[in-house]
Amino acid sequence: MKLDHIGIAVKSLAALKIYKALGLTVDHVEDVQTQGVKTAFIDVGDANLELLEPLSPESPVAKFIAKRGEGIHHICFRVTNLESHLERLKQQGFRLINEAPVPGAHGCRVAFLHPSSGNGVLIELSERIE
Amino acid sequence: MKLDHIGIAVKSLAALKIYKALGLTVDHVEDVQTQGVKTAFIDVGDANLELLEPLSPESPVAKFIAKRGEGIHHICFRVTNLESHLERLKQQGFRLINEAPVPGAHGCRVAFLHPSSGNGVLIELSERIE
Repeated sequence: MKLDHIGIAVKSLAALKIYKALGLTVDHVEDVQTQGVKTAFIDVGDANLELLEPLSPESPVAKFIAKRGEGIHHICFRVTNLESHLERLKQQGFRLINEAPVPGAHGCRVAFLHPSSGNGVLIELSERIE
Repeated sequence: MKLDHIGIAVKSLAALKIYKALGLTVDHVEDVQTQGVKTAFIDVGDANLELLEPLSPESPVAKFIAKRGEGIHHICFRVTNLESHLERLKQQGFRLINEAPVPGAHGCRVAFLHPSSGNGVLIELSERIE
C-alpha cells in the first residue's frame, strides 16, 4: 500500500505560490464535482499534493475551512480490492464515512474512513480502475 | 524535490493501530530530543508517515495537540542545498520558523517554514547528510 496523495484545503488556488517557490510544478487542474472542489495536482515523487479549492460554500472542504482554517485535509492511500479493505476495517471496529466506494478524481473509486478511526487524520483509500 | 514524510501528531503511539490495520508496518522508532518527540516511521512508498508522540508537555507537538487536537502536523520535502532554498524563500517574502538549519531525525539538517507561508500548512525542508 502506497501513499497516493495529500489533500490540502485552500480558499483559493493562489495558495500554489509556496509550492511554485519551492520549484514544484502543477501537473493538472480538475473539477471533482462529487467532492465539490477544484483540484490542482502537484507531483512530489511517488505521490501528489492535491490543493482543494471549494466550488461552493456547501462543499465539505468549504465547511472544513470554516471550522479549522486552511491546511492539510486528508491523506490518501492507493489500494487494490477496496471493498475487502472496507469490510475488514469495519469488522475491526473502525468507523467509515463511506461504507461503499464512491467516484473520485481521475475516475478512481474512493472511500473515506472517519477521522476518529485515524486519531484525527482523515484517511482516504483509492482504487484505480484500469 | 520529493516528499520525504508526513508528520502526524498523536497523544500516544497506540494511534499506530489504524496503519497496522491497513497492512502498513513500522520501520523504526526513534526519540528526536531536539523536537521533543518519540517518532514511529511507517514506509508508504517513496515517503514515510512519522507519528509524533510528545516526550513532554513542553514539546511543540504537545502544544499543537492541546490547541488543535491530534492530526496531521506537517509535511516535509527532501532538498539539496537547504541554505539556498531558505535564502530564496526569505528574499521572496515567505516567513520562516528556522532561518538556519537545525538537527532533525536520521541526522538530517532541517528547517521549518511558518504555516502562514503555506496557507496553514507547516512545511519542513530536510537535507540528508551522506
